[in-house]
Amino acid sequence: RCLRAGVLMAKSKFEYVRSFEADDTCLPHCWVVVRLDGRNFHRFAEKHNFAKPNDSRALHLMTKCAQTVMEELEDVAIAYGQSDEYSFVFKPKSNWFKRRASKFMTHVASQFASSYVFYWRDYFEDQPLLYPPGFDGRVVLYPSNQTLKDYLSWRQADCHINNLYNTVYWTLIQRSGLTPTQAQERLKGTLAADKNEILFSQFSINYNNEPLMYRKGTVLIWQKVDEVTTKEVKLPAEMEGRTMAVTRTSMKPVPLHCDIIGDAFWKEHPEILEGNS
Amino acid sequence: RCLRAGVLMAKSKFEYVRSFEADDTCLPHCWVVVRLDGRNFHRFAEKHNFAKPNDSRALHLMTKCAQTVMEELEDVAIAYGQSDEYSFVFKPKSNWFKRRASKFMTHVASQFASSYVFYWRDYFEDQPLLYPPGFDGRVVLYPSNQTLKDYLSWRQADCHINNLYNTVYWTLIQRSGLTPTQAQERLKGTLAADKNEILFSQFSINYNNEPLMYRKGTVLIWQKVDEVTTKEVKLPAEMEGRTMAVTRTSMKPVPLHCDIIGDAFWKEHPEILEGNS
Amino acid sequence: RCLRAGVLMAKSKFEYVRSFEADDTCLPHCWVVVRLDGRNFHRFAEKHNFAKPNDSRALHLMTKCAQTVMEELEDVAIAYGQSDEYSFVFKPKSNWFKRRASKFMTHVASQFASSYVFYWRDYFEDQPLLYPPGFDGRVVLYPSNQTLKDYLSWRQADCHINNLYNTVYWTLIQRSGLTPTQAQERLKGTLAADKNEILFSQFSINYNNEPLMYRKGTVLIWQKVDEVTTKEVKLPAEMEGRTMAVTRTSMKPVPLHCDIIGDAFWKEHPEILEGNS
Amino acid sequence: RCLRAGVLMAKSKFEYVRSFEADDTCLPHCWVVVRLDGRNFHRFAEKHNFAKPNDSRALHLMTKCAQTVMEELEDVAIAYGQSDEYSFVFKPKSNWFKRRASKFMTHVASQFASSYVFYWRDYFEDQPLLYPPGFDGRVVLYPSNQTLKDYLSWRQADCHINNLYNTVYWTLIQRSGLTPTQAQERLKGTLAADKNEILFSQFSINYNNEPLMYRKGTVLIWQKVDEVTTKEVKLPAEMEGRTMAVTRTSMKPVPLHCDIIGDAFWKEHPEILEGNS
Repeated sequence: RCLRAGVLMAKSKFEYVRSFEADDTCLPHCWVVVRLDGRNFHRFAEKHNFAKPNDSRALHLMTKCAQTVMEELEDVAIAYGQSDEYSFVFKPKSNWFKRRASKFMTHVASQFASSYVFYWRDYFEDQPLLYPPGFDGRVVLYPSNQTLKDYLSWRQADCHINNLYNTVYWTLIQRSGLTPTQAQERLKGTLAADKNEILFSQFSINYNNEPLMYRKGTVLIWQKVDEVTTKEVKLPAEMEGRTMAVTRTSMKPVPLHCDIIGDAFWKEHPEILEGNS
Repeated sequence: RCLRAGVLMAKSKFEYVRSFEADDTCLPHCWVVVRLDGRNFHRFAEKHNFAKPNDSRALHLMTKCAQTVMEELEDVAIAYGQSDEYSFVFKPKSNWFKRRASKFMTHVASQFASSYVFYWRDYFEDQPLLYPPGFDGRVVLYPSNQTLKDYLSWRQADCHINNLYNTVYWTLIQRSGLTPTQAQERLKGTLAADKNEILFSQFSINYNNEPLMYRKGTVLIWQKVDEVTTKEVKLPAEMEGRTMAVTRTSMKPVPLHCDIIGDAFWKEHPEILEGNS
Repeated sequence: RCLRAGVLMAKSKFEYVRSFEADDTCLPHCWVVVRLDGRNFHRFAEKHNFAKPNDSRALHLMTKCAQTVMEELEDVAIAYGQSDEYSFVFKPKSNWFKRRASKFMTHVASQFASSYVFYWRDYFEDQPLLYPPGFDGRVVLYPSNQTLKDYLSWRQADCHINNLYNTVYWTLIQRSGLTPTQAQERLKGTLAADKNEILFSQFSINYNNEPLMYRKGTVLIWQKVDEVTTKEVKLPAEMEGRTMAVTRTSMKPVPLHCDIIGDAFWKEHPEILEGNS
Repeated sequence: RCLRAGVLMAKSKFEYVRSFEADDTCLPHCWVVVRLDGRNFHRFAEKHNFAKPNDSRALHLMTKCAQTVMEELEDVAIAYGQSDEYSFVFKPKSNWFKRRASKFMTHVASQFASSYVFYWRDYFEDQPLLYPPGFDGRVVLYPSNQTLKDYLSWRQADCHINNLYNTVYWTLIQRSGLTPTQAQERLKGTLAADKNEILFSQFSINYNNEPLMYRKGTVLIWQKVDEVTTKEVKLPAEMEGRTMAVTRTSMKPVPLHCDIIGDAFWKEHPEILEGNS
C-alpha cells in the first residue's frame, strides 16, 4: 500500500516530460488547409476491384467521408476532392483547438478513415472491405484569398490532367487491347490536344461529355437544405395520432462538380471567402 | 480544345502554392512518440454501453488496432496503451517518410481509426457501432532513453491513478448505490491509501488483485512468435494431397501487462532501447 | 601524413550533423517583422547618463543604426522605432536568404549592434561608450496589410502610452523634487487625461507641444534624396581642374515622426504596401 | 485630450497582433548550438588588409568577442572558433529565456557584433575600422553528447582542411609568385598528402609546425583563473595606506588550441559534458 502512495509523487516526478511537447499553433488569419491522400491506394484499388479509370462508388464514398468530416469537425469552409485525395479548408478566424496543426490534421485523418470503413458497405454492396485503409495528411497555410484559390485551382488542374491521361490510357487498354506498357508508350510526349484527338478520332469519345465528377472533382460547400422528416402528432380532438411531414432547413455540405478555377464560382458563392480578404 | 492545352500551363502557374508547405522534419536521433486519444470517448462509451470502470472488449479492440498500426507502419519500437489512449514510439534512427512529423501522426491516426471500425465486430459482437469515432494525435520528441522511459512511466502512473480512482468511484455507485455526485464527494481529497482502504474495508476488494490489464495498461513489444499454418503437400508417390502443419517463426507485436516504471522490464528487454543510449 | 589523409574522411564522417539543422523558412506572401530590443537598457541608460525621459542623442543613434540596417540588408520596406526598440518590416515577396527566419533576425541584430558601437561617437561626443551593448530580436509574420498596419499601430500606441507616463513621471521628479516612489504613487491609477492635466496645471506643459520624435517615435521609409557631391572636372581649354557640384538622386531611408495609426500616412505613401493587398 | 483617452483602448485593440508570435522553444535536454559566420568577410578582410592566409589579430579579436559572449550570456558550456566563424554551445539543462531559439541566436549575434567593433582597436592598432561588420547565426540542436562532439569535430576537421588548403595556396602566391588562378589550378585534385608534400619539398615548410591556433582553431572552456589585483589597505597602526596584492580566483573562458576530435580532450575535461550523457 505504501507503494501506492508513491505513485502520485512518481507521476509528478515524470510530468516534466510534458515540456517536450512543441507548440504548433497555426499562424492566425491564414487559411488552414489539411490535405489527405490515400496510402498505397494503387494496391487498394486493385484488391477491391475498382473500376478504371474512375470508380464512382469509391468517389462517392470519399465524398461521404468528407461530408462527415465537415459535419463532425468545426470551421471547415470548403472541401475539394478528386481521386484518392481530399482537401479541407478551415476558416482563417477558426480557433478550433487553439489552431494546433496536429489537432487539425489528426482529427481530419482519423475521422475520414473511420468513416471510410463505416460507410464502405453503403457504396460497395458486393465488394467486401478486405483490410482497413490508411491515409496521410499535411497542413498548409495560405495567407490570402488569392493564394487559397490558387491552391484549389492547382488541385483541380491536377484532377483534369490526371483524368484526361487516365481516360485515354484505360480506353486504349480496355477498347484497343493495348498492354499497360503499350498504352504508356502511346501517350508519351502527347499534349492535352493530342489526347483529346485520340479519344475522338479513335473511340468517338468527346472528352467534354465525360461525367463532370470525373473531370472536375468534387467541391463541398455549406448550403441550406430542406430536410423532410415525419413526426407523430396528436391533435386534441383525435383519438389516434397522425404522422405529419415536417420540413426543417439546415446547413449541409453539398457536393458540386463545377469549375473552381475561374471567377464565376467565387462570385456565385461570395460567403465562402467573405470577411477574409 | 484550346482551353485544354492551357491546363498544364495553368497547373504550373498555380504550382507555386507548394512552396507554402512547411518542413516539419523531426530532429534526428530522437525518439518520436505519437500519442492518440479518443475524441469525446466519454460520450462514445455511454452510447455503446461500455462496462464501467473498464470494458475489456474496448481495451482489447484498442490493442488490436495498435497491433495493426505496428504491423502496417515502419519502425515502431514499442507501444503503450490505457483507457482510450495509445502511444507509439518510433526508433531514433527511423527515416520513415524522412521523419516528417505530419506523416508520423496522420498515418498512425488514420490507420488506428480505420482499424477501430474494421475490427469492432470481432470484439463487440452484440453491440453495433453507431457512428465512426475520431481520435486526435500529437508528436513529441524525446532525446534520450531516460526521457523516453520517463514518458512511458508518466503514462503508466497516469493509468494507475485513474484506474484506482475509477475503480472506487464505480464500486461506490454500483455496489453502494451512491449517485455520481455522492461518489465524487466521497472521494474528494482522498489519497491512494484511503482509496485502497475503502475498497478493502467496505467491499473486501484487494485492489492488487484487480486484473493487470486494468492496473498496468498494455505494452506492445516485438517478439518471436511461432505461427502454425497448414499446407497442402503432394508427395510423388501419393495420389492424394496431404495437409501438413508448418511452423513459421515471425516477429509480432505482443501485448504485456507489466510494470514499465521499474528497471526490471528494460533489463529483460534490452533490445528495445539497444543502440540508442 | 597518414593522419592528414584521414581528415577528409573524418569530415565526411561527421557531416551527418548538418542534418540536425531545422528548416525555418518564413511562410511566403507574409510580411516578416524583425523587432529588436535593447538588452538591459535601463542599466545601460544610467551608466551612460542618458537624459530623462528622452535622450535625443540615443534616439538619433538608434535611427542611424536602423538606416544602416536598411541600407546593408535587402528588402526592408519600412522600419519603426521608439525608446530602445526598432522593428524592421521585410516585403512579403522577399526571398532574401530563402526567407530563413534565423537569417533575417541575426543579420538585423548583428548589423544593428555593430553600428551602435561604430556610430556611438558621432552622437555621444563627450560620453565614452563603456561596454558593448546587446540586443534581442524576434521574427513575427503578418499575413495581410491590415495585420501589419495593426502591428505598427500597436508599437506607436505603446510609444505614446509610455512617453506620456515617462514625461509626467520625470517632470514630477525633476521639477517637483518627488522621489521615484512618490512619483510612481502619484501616477497610480491615473488615466491619460489625468496625466495631461498634471502636466498642464502643475507645470504649464502642453503635452501636444512635446517634440514629435518623443511622442510618435520614428518611421523610416525609402524616399528619393538629392545628394550633392563635388567632382573634379578638367575642361579641355583649361589648365587647371575645376570642382563642380554634381547632383545624384538615390533612394534613402528617411526618418519621419508622424502618426501611422490613421489612414492618412498610408494614403500618402501607397508604395509601401503596394502590390501586397 | 479626448483623443488621448482613446489610445489605451487603441492599444488593446491592436494587441491581438501579439498572438502572431510563434513559439520557438528549443527541445529540452538537447545541446543548443549557435553558430555565427561573418557576413561577406572575404571583402571585409581585403578592405582591412588582413594577413593571408591567417591574420592573428583578427583571430584574437574573434576570440575576445567570443569570451565576451560567454561572460555576458548565460549557460555557454564551450565555444569553438576558426576563421570568421564561432560556435557557442548552451547546456542541455539551460532554461535561459525559456530556451527560445530567437533569444539564443540574437543575443549571441548582437553581443558578438558590438564587441567586434568595441574591441577592434585593441587588436588592430594601425588599421582603422572602415564600416560596421555583420554576422549571421543559426541554432542547431544536438540530442546527445556524441552528436555534440561530432558537431565540434566537424568544425575542427573543416578548419584543418581549409587551413591546409589556404596555407599552400597563399605560399604559392606569396613565395612562388603564382597568380590566384595558377595557385588554384596547381591545387586542383590534390589530396592532403600532396599539399603537405608541396609545402615540404618546395618551401621546406613542415605543416605540423605551423601555429596550433591556425591548424586547430580555438576552443574556449571555463577554467579557474587567479586574478591578482591591488587593493589599498590601511592597518590600524599606520598613518598611510599600503597597497597589497590580492589574489581572487574566478571562472573565465580560457582559449586552448588543441585537438577536440579525439577522446583525450574530453577525458581531460569531463566537466564539460558532465551530467548530460
